Amino acid sequence: MPIVTVKMLEGRTDEQKRELVEKMTEAVTSTTGADAERVSVVIEEMQPQNFGKAGVRASDQ
Amino acid sequence: MPIVTVKMLEGRTDEQKRELVEKMTEAVTSTTGADAERVSVVIEEMQPQNFGKAGVRASDQ
Amino acid sequence: MPIVTVKMLEGRTDEQKRELVEKMTEAVTSTTGADAERVSVVIEEMQPQNFGKAGVRASDQ
Amino acid sequence: MPIVTVKMLEGRTDEQKRELVEKMTEAVTSTTGADAERVSVVIEEMQPQNFGKAGVRASDQ
Amino acid sequence: MPIVTVKMLEGRTDEQKRELVEKMTEAVTSTTGADAERVSVVIEEMQPQNFGKAGVRASDQ
Amino acid sequence: MPIVTVKMLEGRTDEQKRELVEKMTEAVTSTTGADAERVSVVIEEMQPQNFGKAGVRASDQ
Repeated sequence: MPIVTVKMLEGRTDEQKRELVEKMTEAVTSTTGADAERVSVVIEEMQPQNFGKAGVRASDQ
Repeated sequence: MPIVTVKMLEGRTDEQKRELVEKMTEAVTSTTGADAERVSVVIEEMQPQNFGKAGVRASDQ
Repeated sequence: MPIVTVKMLEGRTDEQKRELVEKMTEAVTSTTGADAERVSVVIEEMQPQNFGKAGVRASDQ
Repeated sequence: MPIVTVKMLEGRTDEQKRELVEKMTEAVTSTTGADAERVSVVIEEMQPQNFGKAGVRASDQ
Repeated sequence: MPIVTVKMLEGRTDEQKRELVEKMTEAVTSTTGADAERVSVVIEEMQPQNFGKAGVRASDQ
Repeated sequence: MPIVTVKMLEGRTDEQKRELVEKMTEAVTSTTGADAERVSVVIEEMQPQNFGKAGVRASDQ
C-alpha cells in the first residue's frame, strides 16, 4: 500500500525518472518489507516559477 | 470542508471528468452528511512516465 | 492506478468511513473504467484546530 | 521544515505568484518562528476542468 | 478555491496555529484577489520521527 | 528541493523509519543529482480503517 510522491523541479531526463521510480520502490520494499507489487510512485514536476525557498522562487534566482 | 483529490493517468475525456466530479461529490455527501456546497474535488492527471507500480512506470510497460 | 485522498474533519463513525471508501471506489470505476483492484482510497482526518475557512478555524467558530 | 502547498486555478500572473511565495513565507516565519531558509512553497495550478465545487466544475459554470 | 496546506513539525501553540491560518488566508487573498470565503487552510503536523532532511530525521539530530 | 512523501500503514518500527528516510534520500540524490541537503522526506502513517484498496479497508480484511 505504500504511496510515494516525489515533487521536484522539472528538467530530469526520462532515464533519470525511470531509475528514480526503481530505486524509490527498492528503498521502500527493503526497509518496510512491503511487497513491490503494492508500491506506487508518483513524480510531480514543478516549474521554477512555482517553487520557492526562503521566499525566493527558483525562477528568480 | 471535505477536500477530495484524485490522481489518475491522463487520457480521460472531459465528460468522464465531469461525471467523476459529480459522483465523488455525491459519494461524500451521502456517506458523511457534509453539505455539497462544502465539497471540493481536484483531479490531478499523471503522465505515464511519471507514475510507477512495482518499480515499473506506466510508460515502460 | 487512481489514488483518491479525502481530507475531512474528524468525527465520522467507522461505518461512515467504510461506506465512504466503497462509494468513492465505485465512483472512480464507473466513470473512468479503472479496475477496482487498482483504486486506492486514503482518508485523512483533520482536527478542528487544524482546518480553517475564510481565515477562521473550525475550532474557533 | 515547513512545506506550504497552494492549489489554485491557473491564470495568475508571474508577479502575483512571486508575491504569493514571499507573503506565504512571511506568514509562516512570523507566526511559527521558523527560519525563512527552511520554508518551501509550492504552487500547484489547476485547470478549470479539473476542479469542482458542489459537484460542478469551474469549467462548467 | 485556493487550498493551502502547511506541513510542519508539531509543537506550535493553539494561538500560533490560529494566527497562521489568518495570515495564510490574507496572503492568498491580497496577492491573488481570491475571495476569503473560498480559501481553505489545512495544517498537517509531523512528528519528529516522521520527517527527515538530508537523510537525517528531526528526532535523530 | 525534492520533497518526498511516503504514505504507508502504521506499524513500522522507529529503526525501519530511520532507514527508510536514509534510503529514500540516497535514491533521490543518486538518480537526480540533487544535493542531499535539499531533500526532505515526510512519512505519513495511515490507520487501517483509513485506507482502502479495491473498495475494502485494510481494517476490514
